[in-house]
Amino acid sequence: MALYQRWRCLRLQGLQACRLHTAVVSTPPRWLAERLGLFEELWAAQVKRLASMAQKEPRTIKISLPGGQKIDAVAWNTTPYQLARQISSTLADTAVAAQVNGEPYDLERPLETDSDLRFLTFDSPEGKAVFWHSSTHVLGAAAEQFLGAVLCRGPSTEYGFYHDFFLGKERTIRGSELPVLERICQELTAAARPFRRLEASRDQLRQLFKDNPFKLHLIEEKVTGPTATVYGCGTLVDLCQGPHLRHTGQIGGLKLLSEQELFFFHELSPGSCFFLPRGTRVYNALVAFIRAEYAHRGFSEVKTPTLFSTKLWEQSGHWEHYQEDMFAVQPPGSDRPPSSQSDDSTRHITDTLALKPMNCPAHCLMFAHRPRSWRELPLRLADFGALHRAEASGGLGGLTRLRCFQQDDAHIFCTTDQLEAEIQSCLDFLRSVYAVLGFSFRLALSTRPSGFLGDPCLWDQAEQVLKQALKEFGEPWDLNSGDGAFYGPKIDVHLHDALGRPHQCGTIQLDFQLPLRFDLQYKGQAGALERPVLIHRAVLGSVERLLGVLAESCGGKWPLWLSPFQVVVIPVGSEQEEYAKEAQQSLRAAGLVSDLDADSGLTLSRRIRRAQLAHYNFQFVVGQKEQSKRTVNIRTRDNRRLGEWDLPEAVQRLVELQNTRVPNAEEIF
Amino acid sequence: MALYQRWRCLRLQGLQACRLHTAVVSTPPRWLAERLGLFEELWAAQVKRLASMAQKEPRTIKISLPGGQKIDAVAWNTTPYQLARQISSTLADTAVAAQVNGEPYDLERPLETDSDLRFLTFDSPEGKAVFWHSSTHVLGAAAEQFLGAVLCRGPSTEYGFYHDFFLGKERTIRGSELPVLERICQELTAAARPFRRLEASRDQLRQLFKDNPFKLHLIEEKVTGPTATVYGCGTLVDLCQGPHLRHTGQIGGLKLLSEQELFFFHELSPGSCFFLPRGTRVYNALVAFIRAEYAHRGFSEVKTPTLFSTKLWEQSGHWEHYQEDMFAVQPPGSDRPPSSQSDDSTRHITDTLALKPMNCPAHCLMFAHRPRSWRELPLRLADFGALHRAEASGGLGGLTRLRCFQQDDAHIFCTTDQLEAEIQSCLDFLRSVYAVLGFSFRLALSTRPSGFLGDPCLWDQAEQVLKQALKEFGEPWDLNSGDGAFYGPKIDVHLHDALGRPHQCGTIQLDFQLPLRFDLQYKGQAGALERPVLIHRAVLGSVERLLGVLAESCGGKWPLWLSPFQVVVIPVGSEQEEYAKEAQQSLRAAGLVSDLDADSGLTLSRRIRRAQLAHYNFQFVVGQKEQSKRTVNIRTRDNRRLGEWDLPEAVQRLVELQNTRVPNAEEIF
Repeated sequence: MALYQRWRCLRLQGLQACRLHTAVVSTPPRWLAERLGLFEELWAAQVKRLASMAQKEPRTIKISLPGGQKIDAVAWNTTPYQLARQISSTLADTAVAAQVNGEPYDLERPLETDSDLRFLTFDSPEGKAVFWHSSTHVLGAAAEQFLGAVLCRGPSTEYGFYHDFFLGKERTIRGSELPVLERICQELTAAARPFRRLEASRDQLRQLFKDNPFKLHLIEEKVTGPTATVYGCGTLVDLCQGPHLRHTGQIGGLKLLSEQELFFFHELSPGSCFFLPRGTRVYNALVAFIRAEYAHRGFSEVKTPTLFSTKLWEQSGHWEHYQEDMFAVQPPGSDRPPSSQSDDSTRHITDTLALKPMNCPAHCLMFAHRPRSWRELPLRLADFGALHRAEASGGLGGLTRLRCFQQDDAHIFCTTDQLEAEIQSCLDFLRSVYAVLGFSFRLALSTRPSGFLGDPCLWDQAEQVLKQALKEFGEPWDLNSGDGAFYGPKIDVHLHDALGRPHQCGTIQLDFQLPLRFDLQYKGQAGALERPVLIHRAVLGSVERLLGVLAESCGGKWPLWLSPFQVVVIPVGSEQEEYAKEAQQSLRAAGLVSDLDADSGLTLSRRIRRAQLAHYNFQFVVGQKEQSKRTVNIRTRDNRRLGEWDLPEAVQRLVELQNTRVPNAEEIF
Repeated sequence: MALYQRWRCLRLQGLQACRLHTAVVSTPPRWLAERLGLFEELWAAQVKRLASMAQKEPRTIKISLPGGQKIDAVAWNTTPYQLARQISSTLADTAVAAQVNGEPYDLERPLETDSDLRFLTFDSPEGKAVFWHSSTHVLGAAAEQFLGAVLCRGPSTEYGFYHDFFLGKERTIRGSELPVLERICQELTAAARPFRRLEASRDQLRQLFKDNPFKLHLIEEKVTGPTATVYGCGTLVDLCQGPHLRHTGQIGGLKLLSEQELFFFHELSPGSCFFLPRGTRVYNALVAFIRAEYAHRGFSEVKTPTLFSTKLWEQSGHWEHYQEDMFAVQPPGSDRPPSSQSDDSTRHITDTLALKPMNCPAHCLMFAHRPRSWRELPLRLADFGALHRAEASGGLGGLTRLRCFQQDDAHIFCTTDQLEAEIQSCLDFLRSVYAVLGFSFRLALSTRPSGFLGDPCLWDQAEQVLKQALKEFGEPWDLNSGDGAFYGPKIDVHLHDALGRPHQCGTIQLDFQLPLRFDLQYKGQAGALERPVLIHRAVLGSVERLLGVLAESCGGKWPLWLSPFQVVVIPVGSEQEEYAKEAQQSLRAAGLVSDLDADSGLTLSRRIRRAQLAHYNFQFVVGQKEQSKRTVNIRTRDNRRLGEWDLPEAVQRLVELQNTRVPNAEEIF
């Protein structure tokens, strides 16, 4: 259950439904009909059971509302929704779920005993969660029907929801399938299907989900009692605690976004990501950030080739230990008879080549390409080169595990004396980058494993140096005894994103072996040749993966400096369209992402609302007054009104806020 | 004679000789001894012949000096050097060659008739050329001896010289070999070997150079008279018009630079370039320049994968037409029996993959990944992705022809109506970039070839549009009838660098075929699906190749914005070293390349001279006064003194000059 496609889905009110590209919906899989049949059977039995219970003891119960009001209700019969209607029709319309004795509760689920009752609307975080979570079921139903998807997790997030599902190995979502899915979702919401809550026994659960290994796993691992709840909605039956909206009609529009049009995947390049213009924008902003840090911190960026003779990988040891994860390259003509042309122009390439999975051996060649002196150390070589690793298709998943990616990879060649200072500045580098990104982190020192290579004294010394550096750094750290690599001890960095999810991105590793394998030497201060120590380090790790982490953790609300939706210029009327284009061009010329929303089919307020839902950090509204004064009227995505600004001053201010990489440009503009 | 390694060599006075890394000099090749033997034979005969001529008719001739002075000399006996000594010992020491009746002349070559005589010193361009040219012989001799190199061209340039030579296929220079070559050069200059001028017949020339196909070619193509001159110097014998210094001792130190430490090649990655920190700096500055233009010109940068299924290349037609130039990739495990693991985690990759040689098919996938509307056109997708082409080893040469490179590649998807405006703005893009780089260019329109594909009416229309765009652009252009690609007409761009050398870098090509092959469509304004036109375009072309062109054409004197040697900070004494480091750090933090020369073993003036010879655009000298006032004393590489500046102001001014990409920052600082 490893290959799946992760989607972020956002509810964007007021957006027109996308036009359809293809309209043929394939026949839904057979297991879907079987599962639904079983559910209907169990549902009918439950309806009968509840009716008989309500009939057997028609007991009156007391329901307490916030503010102290108490209402009578009938046990196993009266629902929170019925009570909401008694209170006010507005409440009944806006309530998305209830809380009964502090626990979330479906509006259509009969009350059982005396209870405290509260209604949840979309305005509360709990209400939003119910709304987003209900939406995942609609998407899940569409994905099962149209794609035959096997559903995995479908949680709500702060700003929407996403759904993981498995489409079979090598299969990913095509962008062209999004509108079809959206149409099916739309049909399902238009049909206002009820969310039906079913209590099922463990055996019934196993029977219902016999075709979904992910859910079967959950049943065995997570279901502790004799029963668990299952919800039906349209053709979908899902294992789920609820609660939900009353019916799918409450959802209204549903807009599927593949992470804000940042990137997509395609089956013709499995395991590689296509970054669309906005995704490339974020990508380049991350790289520029690290480059700026490199300038401050004395790192030298280099560019090394992608293809190397396997002789290099033999020398580095990768061929022995890592060959299965490397892509070997067939030299053209290697399957043809030797060329009849002259020696000079023969295209026969004698060495087998392989795509680099790591930059370190290339950096060792660079270190060794001419004699080095102690004066050049520490030499910090950084490289954003594309790395290829032949991940098993089963291991591929969105941006988390790719076959092609780039790292903010650097190798530090230094003397033993410089080690402690270098480790400390690596730690400082991590801390300041993660602070800007809003990540917290925790460090762990991994010391020598049983099969370590090299001189034990050197290891002792190095481990001491790392401990000392960690101590002086002042952040808490753990000791993972015996967990180091065979070539040297390391510091693992576990970061936590804004949602609190853990990721492993950065790393600091010592290496005593590569300098030996490449016979790296420098002329020491005393004149003799000495061997440098090598530090492998990365802060972001894979730029692709980090981008994915950020996209999910910021939920589409990017900080200005990273944002692929920085400014949208909105002309009030068509007379201001030319001036709006000028404003857009000024922003672009200053290196800012700016779009224009001159859609005359929508009112100004609808377009402002649309921009805010799309999370444009700023909206520049230009009407007649602004045009004549060459100003812009600025709002933020949180609808703060910043008033009228001279256009060049506004652009200049945004450039400043972008360059300083502040997290809250909208607040301090 | 195609594979060779190009070197730029610069004489840097005052630099200590590099320490040796390896010292074993391999046995010189046998042909070297044979050639030298024959030369000595011919030389002895010539000495005898000249002596007998001088003896036969000891005629007095009149030599006129500049300013009108006349001196007597003996025909076939007196040399310009002898006359220089008569005039003054300083002149004899500083003269590098003579001019006799306006023609360059060796100082040691006997005068033959009444002549006007002038002496050349290193101060004149002609004198410099003689000096640099003589140095190429020293390097050539070392390369023959140590590397068994076959010598090709070895011209002087405005600022030094370079030497092309052939080392056998796949073989390139290793950085570690530079010091050995330098040591051999040093020995040869220390030995003060005379440059001996020999007049040889065509047959003798053929005999002398029977082992050098490049020189044999020159003899057949370029030697028009019955004889030509050959020079001997140490073990080297070379076909050459001269003149030269009197002996190698006049050269003094010789510092070999692989293009200013910008990049190097390594046999473990044939045909790929390793960009060192300074080279990466230039590379990134070029990319940033194009990115800034993209922001102004409405191009959207994207990032697409490197590896694609061969199915993609079948669809695009590359597999049929270009397969021999593509690297196919062996999926790991494809040579092993099928995995025994479960389906999900099998690592068997079913499709054959190939490294992309071009970006266009990936951009077509991106266009097609979701439905497109006419509102999105023109869609201009730009990509700096790494491209791999399996160039025959015979075709590889420095940065000119690589197996791995990046282009400033973009594809414009537009409507037929937008074509003319798009072509015009492509031309404008070319012109403004080339103007900044100091290139002139010439355009040529290539129209449909005999085997063209597609609708002739479409071709007619497109050719008309291109002609119209060229006319309105206003630059001269040529018509290459029938020279277009089979898929569409194109505009070729031939640029001329600062040395007047022609290069083909930019291109603008129309393509009617790829939109068909990928079934690209957009919804037109009227609602029906229409097919876009595709324009392939590049301005720099291969960034690597353009960098090579620039490196040679600017001869190490980079404009500030591209320069890998922007500023060197020079403390007057060791007390100012800390402040100098601070200044260096301020420069670096502002994104400028800055180095420190605190070498206490050299006087201040020697360090300034060294910085100027290394072509640092600016030198910041800091003494006691500057330290106390927190200022810097600025000089340019042409030794203009800009006086004392506040450090932050100086940094700010450099950033401005860098950002505006002026060609003459030193003059307008």
